[in-house]
Amino acid sequence: MKTYIGIDLGGTNVRVAKISEDGKVLSQVKGPSYGTEGPAKVMKNLKEMIREIPDWRECSGIGIGVPGPVDTKAGTMVLSTNLPGFSGYPIADELSKEFGMPAFLDNDANVAGLAEALVGAGKGLGTVFYVTISTGIGGVLVVNGKTVSGKHGFGGEIANIIIDRDREKINYLNVGAVENEASGTAITRKGKAAFGDDKIQHAGNVLDLAAKGDEKAKEIKACMEKDLGQLFATIACVCDPDMFIIGGGMTKSADKFLPGVIEQYKAMSHTAVHDTPFVIAGLEEPGIIGAAMLPVSNGI
Amino acid sequence: MKTYIGIDLGGTNVRVAKISEDGKVLSQVKGPSYGTEGPAKVMKNLKEMIREIPDWRECSGIGIGVPGPVDTKAGTMVLSTNLPGFSGYPIADELSKEFGMPAFLDNDANVAGLAEALVGAGKGLGTVFYVTISTGIGGVLVVNGKTVSGKHGFGGEIANIIIDRDREKINYLNVGAVENEASGTAITRKGKAAFGDDKIQHAGNVLDLAAKGDEKAKEIKACMEKDLGQLFATIACVCDPDMFIIGGGMTKSADKFLPGVIEQYKAMSHTAVHDTPFVIAGLEEPGIIGAAMLPVSNGI
Repeated sequence: MKTYIGIDLGGTNVRVAKISEDGKVLSQVKGPSYGTEGPAKVMKNLKEMIREIPDWRECSGIGIGVPGPVDTKAGTMVLSTNLPGFSGYPIADELSKEFGMPAFLDNDANVAGLAEALVGAGKGLGTVFYVTISTGIGGVLVVNGKTVSGKHGFGGEIANIIIDRDREKINYLNVGAVENEASGTAITRKGKAAFGDDKIQHAGNVLDLAAKGDEKAKEIKACMEKDLGQLFATIACVCDPDMFIIGGGMTKSADKFLPGVIEQYKAMSHTAVHDTPFVIAGLEEPGIIGAAMLPVSNGI
Repeated sequence: MKTYIGIDLGGTNVRVAKISEDGKVLSQVKGPSYGTEGPAKVMKNLKEMIREIPDWRECSGIGIGVPGPVDTKAGTMVLSTNLPGFSGYPIADELSKEFGMPAFLDNDANVAGLAEALVGAGKGLGTVFYVTISTGIGGVLVVNGKTVSGKHGFGGEIANIIIDRDREKINYLNVGAVENEASGTAITRKGKAAFGDDKIQHAGNVLDLAAKGDEKAKEIKACMEKDLGQLFATIACVCDPDMFIIGGGMTKSADKFLPGVIEQYKAMSHTAVHDTPFVIAGLEEPGIIGAAMLPVSNGI
């Protein structure tokens, strides 16, 4: 069975693992990424960690997940807020030359979705859309085992989709952008506005209040369910996935809001697509497994 | 060079052509489809027409475009309003057995988009989204030369995407569905409401009035441009295509509204995706050429 090197490179930490083609973690090295110290330091450290992987020479390829949009063809980051100096830096090329095997770069959310699509819940399906609902809202479309990153690496960057024009302007995103209305951050903001900073630390507090029958909390929850239902209905119109896979921190409370989201999705969709399954992401290490799947999805 | 049989099967007419793999029409037969007389009559007639194509035996495969959503895996129509009796009928299987070559079925809008993506403006690009703006609004996503029809054949069926919740209920589609707000039919409806049935026969009349400076017509046009701009911005968030290709009857007036649509698209999109090209569909026979490209996109 083929093996691959998967790398989850964040602004603070980095993990390097040897992964089998069916998604098993065979060995793993973790450590600080030195993300604020610039590419020379980050890359030197990363190369040393790869050499710590037993029999790394037997691997068929390298995949790297990074925070932010990526030019997958060039193997470079387009924006690198959490890894200063890496915008346009040839990460994939440099690792490919150093270790003598093909290397591929993609966004960390894309990579997590790829893991779920290839060796997780979506295994064997043609079209999978992965949505992460956490601090923000992101996603990735996987078609025939390949992420659809698109022209600028923005494929699946669904945060800015407008679900309702009649909302407040919050930040640089569109008025009514789904991330500003239905993410964990958004529900926390709405909860604090309704109940005060003391009562609400995170979105889960709002969902708990709603479960106890609080009318204001139930309104916030109903609005979130409609906003997310519309997001999924919109995505279904574009690519009609075989499965929606949902990851991210908010899935801890999925039992509280997902049934309502699916109900709203159905209310805004043709009956033919009502049976599309909504599945909670189940892999324990989607970041490094998905990174290791990048060479697989590129036919290596 | 390989050749394929492309079939454009409508409710009224049918066209059968021999097409080269680079999209040239080598020979063509046209006639009535007998669409209202049921599958037995339609299929008998269609088979006779295929046999009229010179050297049809040399072709490598058959592709059929039909009006309405298709189960591409089964090779059957899901809904067949214009071809009664064809819902679930094994069109592709029957032609494949009869002529001893692989046969594939897809929706006529998907097929037209496939033609534009494979041998038209999108030739050689990885991700292409084709949008048709006509009586209705439809589309298709083409990734690496294959249409993404999805689980139920509804991939690209963008008509029902909600662009604004604050609109009238028009029909079975969602309130604020883009087809009810920005299609040719929608602009005609809005024009008739504003100017009366006498002055407005079709959407072009409204655009002409706007060009002459009429304030009400300019409002309708500005609303259409914002609605379509939001549609394209939404699609870009899902799949970030290398190119948007726009077909359908409304493209005759594209010079009047497309610049405004692109301006609105940019206003609702990340700057990174502002350079995505919007190209008017240019093939003369996308229906039969695209049908013939179905075997190509399936690796035949």
